[in-house]
Amino acid sequence: LSVLGREYDQVCGVAKALELIGERWTILLVRDAFLGLRRFEEFQAKNGIARNVLTDRLNGLVDAGIFERVLYHERPPRHEYRLTDKGRELGVALNALREWGERHLLDEPPVELRTRTGKKRVVARLVVEGTRTLQPSDVELVRR
Amino acid sequence: LSVLGREYDQVCGVAKALELIGERWTILLVRDAFLGLRRFEEFQAKNGIARNVLTDRLNGLVDAGIFERVLYHERPPRHEYRLTDKGRELGVALNALREWGERHLLDEPPVELRTRTGKKRVVARLVVEGTRTLQPSDVELVRR
Repeated sequence: LSVLGREYDQVCGVAKALELIGERWTILLVRDAFLGLRRFEEFQAKNGIARNVLTDRLNGLVDAGIFERVLYHERPPRHEYRLTDKGRELGVALNALREWGERHLLDEPPVELRTRTGKKRVVARLVVEGTRTLQPSDVELVRR
Repeated sequence: LSVLGREYDQVCGVAKALELIGERWTILLVRDAFLGLRRFEEFQAKNGIARNVLTDRLNGLVDAGIFERVLYHERPPRHEYRLTDKGRELGVALNALREWGERHLLDEPPVELRTRTGKKRVVARLVVEGTRTLQPSDVELVRR
């Protein structure tokens, strides 16, 4: 197998990830979940996305194991969507993308990523394995 | 400004980045550039992408300042595409996405990211600012 051959896409992590979350709305819904959104009406109000498209994307994210559907009210039954561990692990890629977009495409970053406990600034970077790193659950995104 | 309001997308780094590179082929061409591809024919042979679509995506990447078009042969004039610094900075997001895809969607990762000099394994992670980190130019992706 050559990484430069056409067959590489079948085993390329980037290509595989894009098959699942390569659609713009899908990624933005994952972002919204990191921002704290959980309910259909919240996702809908924030994005102004058509309800049938939103339903489709949320179901896709549940099928992909990135969101889980949780009953939060019994009568009438109401569900909300929460990031699974697998979904939360997308936090590294999303924050790296956010940083790049802020650095190159915006005058001023509107938000800041920091540790929940120490309020230290957090960045997404390449590091040697074994370096002290943070879990997506250790950090919070706040307005600057 | 609320990060939960609809207007947030206008200043969200993720949304802004996706406007530029949110298209599947665009991201895969940036990946290919990290794998060492430079020439139109190489991108074409690897991806089997229609020539007009490829031309369009490459031009878009040049316009976005992610690739630069460089003359490598004078007569006849031949150009190749190289990652700019701005493009190379996408390495963090791409490697984070690759890792996620490999961890969750593949049995075995086909490649490994390591430092060029020490051959140490490299990962994409969230870290406290000030942590010792690597530049995309410090690392290489090799077959496992």
